[in-house]
Amino acid sequence: MRAAVARAGRIVAADLPEPEPGDGHALVAVKACGICGSDLHTLRHAHHMLDVAEATGVGGAFDPELDYVMGHEYVAEVLELGPATDGVAIASGDLVVSIPVLIAGMELVPIGFSNDFAGGYAERMLLTAGACIPVPNGLDHRRAALTEPMAVGLHSVNKSGIKPGDAALVVGCGPIGLAIVVWLAAQGIEPIVASELSPRRRTLAAELGAHVVVDPREEPIFDAWRRVDGMRSVVVYEAVGVPGILDTVIFDAPSQARVLIAGVCMEPDTIRPLIGVVKEINLQFAFGYDPVEFAETLRAIAEGAIDVAPLITGRVGIDGVADAFDALADPEAHVKVLVEPDAPADLTPLGGTPPGH
Amino acid sequence: MRAAVARAGRIVAADLPEPEPGDGHALVAVKACGICGSDLHTLRHAHHMLDVAEATGVGGAFDPELDYVMGHEYVAEVLELGPATDGVAIASGDLVVSIPVLIAGMELVPIGFSNDFAGGYAERMLLTAGACIPVPNGLDHRRAALTEPMAVGLHSVNKSGIKPGDAALVVGCGPIGLAIVVWLAAQGIEPIVASELSPRRRTLAAELGAHVVVDPREEPIFDAWRRVDGMRSVVVYEAVGVPGILDTVIFDAPSQARVLIAGVCMEPDTIRPLIGVVKEINLQFAFGYDPVEFAETLRAIAEGAIDVAPLITGRVGIDGVADAFDALADPEAHVKVLVEPDAPADLTPLGGTPPGH
Repeated sequence: MRAAVARAGRIVAADLPEPEPGDGHALVAVKACGICGSDLHTLRHAHHMLDVAEATGVGGAFDPELDYVMGHEYVAEVLELGPATDGVAIASGDLVVSIPVLIAGMELVPIGFSNDFAGGYAERMLLTAGACIPVPNGLDHRRAALTEPMAVGLHSVNKSGIKPGDAALVVGCGPIGLAIVVWLAAQGIEPIVASELSPRRRTLAAELGAHVVVDPREEPIFDAWRRVDGMRSVVVYEAVGVPGILDTVIFDAPSQARVLIAGVCMEPDTIRPLIGVVKEINLQFAFGYDPVEFAETLRAIAEGAIDVAPLITGRVGIDGVADAFDALADPEAHVKVLVEPDAPADLTPLGGTPPGH
Repeated sequence: MRAAVARAGRIVAADLPEPEPGDGHALVAVKACGICGSDLHTLRHAHHMLDVAEATGVGGAFDPELDYVMGHEYVAEVLELGPATDGVAIASGDLVVSIPVLIAGMELVPIGFSNDFAGGYAERMLLTAGACIPVPNGLDHRRAALTEPMAVGLHSVNKSGIKPGDAALVVGCGPIGLAIVVWLAAQGIEPIVASELSPRRRTLAAELGAHVVVDPREEPIFDAWRRVDGMRSVVVYEAVGVPGILDTVIFDAPSQARVLIAGVCMEPDTIRPLIGVVKEINLQFAFGYDPVEFAETLRAIAEGAIDVAPLITGRVGIDGVADAFDALADPEAHVKVLVEPDAPADLTPLGGTPPGH
């Protein structure tokens, strides 16, 4: 089968052997798989991430010197159920999503970060049959593919403990920042103030429910919040993840602010604890989601409680994944690009808000 | 009157003019005033603290190039009520404590950090009459002087959100770490695991209610917790406040740990956010206390709900404050030293647990 393989720090299209379902597995045909920012990180910083995984026991262990196929934001059609799948709630032909964990014997394999099992940048892959959820309501496969990244946004909002009456400040409107905006708007939080360097993403943030969206070079986000509110309890969502942002947020935030850290800063970072102390800042790091949040996200998309279509800006065939990775380096070009194995290789625009509008 | 004056980065005993009570003030005779670690910090790092105060709007503004008299952990006898004090709940002869804020005209003066009003390292001082609380139950003045630092410990415990069934790990057993141990024990938290370099302070931590106390050079605190528990939700109290401690705690803590930062690290500090992210660590900075916590602390001491006597290790007259500051650099020598204006100048031991036991 065709797959986009991570090999020696680059993405190359290649033909791989067909996957064979083991006990408890479903063999599925990938319909779409979103390209995640963490995949771009992984390609460049795999060793760093593995060091952390080894030190903390969180995350998988794979060898980035060997081939692996990324892709953990997939939606797929069930082709065949493997042995030991009696009683699972899916059947051949079902469109399904799942949390990206494959149970292989006694091992939990993080799908998309394994040398042994392909992720979603491939024509076919293996899923844990018992973890698959059928896509309901005739929901199209593209919106369904947003389940995973939107679940990350829901988890960030849940973990932040925000409640009606609080103000939300979203620093950075990449896919995760935008997902957070969507969930905050769905919960009726007001005001939602967002900051983002890219004009296209600012437009999207407003379209998705942010009440005030600023270019931080023109108006710092806390100034914008003071202009429109300045009174409510503040929850800040840090969705940039570069060194220095955390200290800036701590320095600029009002006393008693809570900061949800959704951005994944790969390097060591310096803060001034004394500033945090005198303001009694709370920093909550967040990661992933739980299976309940994942299922809740699919339900919310399928029922139209949240609209994810504006986030989907392009699609690409397997042979074009390398180009798509390059294109995603420009925040103005795309937000979420879906890999569709049956699409032409070239990265082509899809819906969303076009650049410059 | 005699006072221990902070002058050009040193403490010198000097004679100052008598304070004169203004509107709403009580003139009081200091009976005892604890020496706080933040006073030692202030003497060395006043400019740094003032920069933070200016940047954040939290904390007072005074000129460390001019004389000031520190001391905010005082207990005092009311000598005279000034103008505009009708209806206050105190009278001449009462032993009182108060939160260390003096209302002077339209200004809120942080007592002990002012060029205009002396703090508690003096024979007499001015307090806000309406903020004074009479010391009840015939409580002796030395225990009453512990109200302020113990309120800091109560606030840390309250702010951490710890609840029955959680485990508590206290990193560092200086006065604040020990105050935290006392309150955790009073709330029935179990286990309380503490770490501390000084043998004397380890002994005190055990005496005050810690179930396991380790020298972190011999057994890291998280290893000790795993040895005796390893299962419960963990709240870590960071009460050291030196660069590097925060990153160590984040690196060693279990997933989902909450970290209450009670230590005041004066310098910039480096953390690895990625470690915090994958474990979803929560960092809560804490500072001070509120008036309710202050009053609750006095009540708990007066009713014997908590015993603070073991923390009081020495007393000194005003002319010996400079020597006491030097002595407090050695964690083995003392925990809490009280300045008593009517005591001999020499620093002399008081109760507590003697060194080496």
